[in-house]
Amino acid sequence: MLKIAVLGSSGSIGRQTLAVADKHKKIEIVALAVNRNIQLLERQVRQLRPAYAVVYDHGAAVEFKKRVSDLKTNVLEGMNGLEEVASLPEVDVVVTAVSGAIGLKPTVAAIKMGKTIALANKETLVTAGSIVMNLAQDYQAKIIPVDSEHSAIFQCLQGEKQALDKIILTASGGPFRGWTKERLKGVSPTQALKHPNWNMGRKISIDSATLMNKGLEVIEAHWLFNVSYDSIQVVVHPQSIIHSAVSFVDGSILAHMGVTDMRIPIQYALSYPHRWVGLLKPLDLAEVGELTFEKPDLEGFPTLKLAFTAGRIGGTMPAVLNAANEVAVEAFLKNEIGFLDIAAVVERAMEKHQVNNNPNLDDIFQVDADTRESVSHMIEAKGR
Amino acid sequence: MLKIAVLGSSGSIGRQTLAVADKHKKIEIVALAVNRNIQLLERQVRQLRPAYAVVYDHGAAVEFKKRVSDLKTNVLEGMNGLEEVASLPEVDVVVTAVSGAIGLKPTVAAIKMGKTIALANKETLVTAGSIVMNLAQDYQAKIIPVDSEHSAIFQCLQGEKQALDKIILTASGGPFRGWTKERLKGVSPTQALKHPNWNMGRKISIDSATLMNKGLEVIEAHWLFNVSYDSIQVVVHPQSIIHSAVSFVDGSILAHMGVTDMRIPIQYALSYPHRWVGLLKPLDLAEVGELTFEKPDLEGFPTLKLAFTAGRIGGTMPAVLNAANEVAVEAFLKNEIGFLDIAAVVERAMEKHQVNNNPNLDDIFQVDADTRESVSHMIEAKGR
Repeated sequence: MLKIAVLGSSGSIGRQTLAVADKHKKIEIVALAVNRNIQLLERQVRQLRPAYAVVYDHGAAVEFKKRVSDLKTNVLEGMNGLEEVASLPEVDVVVTAVSGAIGLKPTVAAIKMGKTIALANKETLVTAGSIVMNLAQDYQAKIIPVDSEHSAIFQCLQGEKQALDKIILTASGGPFRGWTKERLKGVSPTQALKHPNWNMGRKISIDSATLMNKGLEVIEAHWLFNVSYDSIQVVVHPQSIIHSAVSFVDGSILAHMGVTDMRIPIQYALSYPHRWVGLLKPLDLAEVGELTFEKPDLEGFPTLKLAFTAGRIGGTMPAVLNAANEVAVEAFLKNEIGFLDIAAVVERAMEKHQVNNNPNLDDIFQVDADTRESVSHMIEAKGR
Repeated sequence: MLKIAVLGSSGSIGRQTLAVADKHKKIEIVALAVNRNIQLLERQVRQLRPAYAVVYDHGAAVEFKKRVSDLKTNVLEGMNGLEEVASLPEVDVVVTAVSGAIGLKPTVAAIKMGKTIALANKETLVTAGSIVMNLAQDYQAKIIPVDSEHSAIFQCLQGEKQALDKIILTASGGPFRGWTKERLKGVSPTQALKHPNWNMGRKISIDSATLMNKGLEVIEAHWLFNVSYDSIQVVVHPQSIIHSAVSFVDGSILAHMGVTDMRIPIQYALSYPHRWVGLLKPLDLAEVGELTFEKPDLEGFPTLKLAFTAGRIGGTMPAVLNAANEVAVEAFLKNEIGFLDIAAVVERAMEKHQVNNNPNLDDIFQVDADTRESVSHMIEAKGR
């Protein structure tokens, strides 16, 4: 039995992880963790009976303890709770599917225990890629990406890593591909939450609409696969059938294709280095019809350029990009700023930031907190 | 230095092999062999100064010896000559790029010496797949496919072979994709020799136009990758950008893509298990525009169905398919039969054949000779 802890079990990736685990009777759920969705957590805990359940939010944790007082499940709370279940000796794989920068500390805790990380939390590598990858090497912890793009690249590189020339990250282009700046100005949260190909959470749907999601993935790919930013190409591929590709020095390209369903990369991260029989009808290329490709529109979607810039600057700059974006996306979802303001806010935050080139984890948390505060002020000031 | 013998150096694959060798100063040409193009062989020998040169045709060999009497090159002839250079102790890799069934004996000779075979001769595995693959295992000889499709599959399987579900062979569909039977009836050799994507020899161009080439590749894939015929899917992909793909049990598909230039798979077969820097500008997916896929038209192009049938029957039947096709293609090129007659002739030869389920090499040669004779008679009788 593979023993896993699922951090973020109420989110989209977390729920699909449980669905995969349910189909393959090879997985035991040792711990579940949520931010504050205790209603869903209660259902999951009653069904799966994990030894541990974590609620990040204090108030919700108190309420949750009452609700499940009839069960033997150990209920923990806050960051300590996340770190504790990520470090449990009996856990083999920690699925870090929490959204946002709170994924970093439990991931680090799990790495220090030499766990295998099924990484679905982009911010971990975006904000602290250098630290996390070095730790993973020191503690011989495997990091298996869950993101469909990085899973694709990871799979393409199983046969060989040495002759790699370039990583080709595909992007659907989001729901507003081809839109003019004028039209993008008026985009509402409801419109932006509708993704053409993938069924995802709210934050990542907006990031996908602005292309910031692809920008974060570029930085993540840089760290995961140890490639320079010049060797990462983003190609818009609206059908999302090719999940990403790698190109080798001899001109050969290996691409990973499949239906657009996160259960495939989730399952791969759990089954690695093996593959288990899939849950879905496989893709039939003859029925795909056509696949198209185009260059990304960096004018209408400047976040991608910002991410490359932040990545190349390095140090604390990607943490600023990420924190500013999180706050801006929240403000957009509350209708406090417009769609195009997201990139503008991130750019402004980056301009104001004094880079620390060699930050430790505390520096990164400080930069994250400072950026959130200053960006919130920036948005408030604008709103007045 | 990698020491190679190139059997079929005057053909398309042979010439491109020499071009690759010329660019990478890591390769020494020990032997060259041609059927009867001694004019080109002389140029190659004077330039490359191999220790051995073979001319298959006796008359041409006599003439060639005179022409290069000023050189130290050992000139050999006939099948013995091919077998001798394929077995030379100093040769590491034998590139078998001769066209047709004459590739079989020298390939077997090379395998028995434990050489690595860069296999560009389809007929070897089509006619004697079982024998050749068993020998390769017994003598621990590596067989690296040169065909772009099989090279693609071979590369996709470098990371893992166990969870393979299906092989997806892509086919350009040839120059007559979408044509009605009525229109196909009138196809001339000149029309059929024009392939939309690949620059190839005459025989393979016709096979590509009838889709027999894909049929032979199906049988070849069956042997090379040890997969059942039910696990081989042919998908028409007119742009030939995806050279082939494999699908795994979890629904993941790995595809190999690149520009359509045989120098890439030739180079891979020589550099394997490494990759050398390519000679060509790599493919830019963003500039590819669109890739399309469709099911093959088995009515207009029945050769593909015949090949699956011959492969499933096994034994001597694929040798019949191959020999009948070779004779029919020659007759078509001489305007003795029409385009659609090629498949009809092959089908008739298969119907008449009494299968030997467990042939040895001699049985296969006998079946090959018998089929050629009876098909020639069949065509003659029809012409009268």
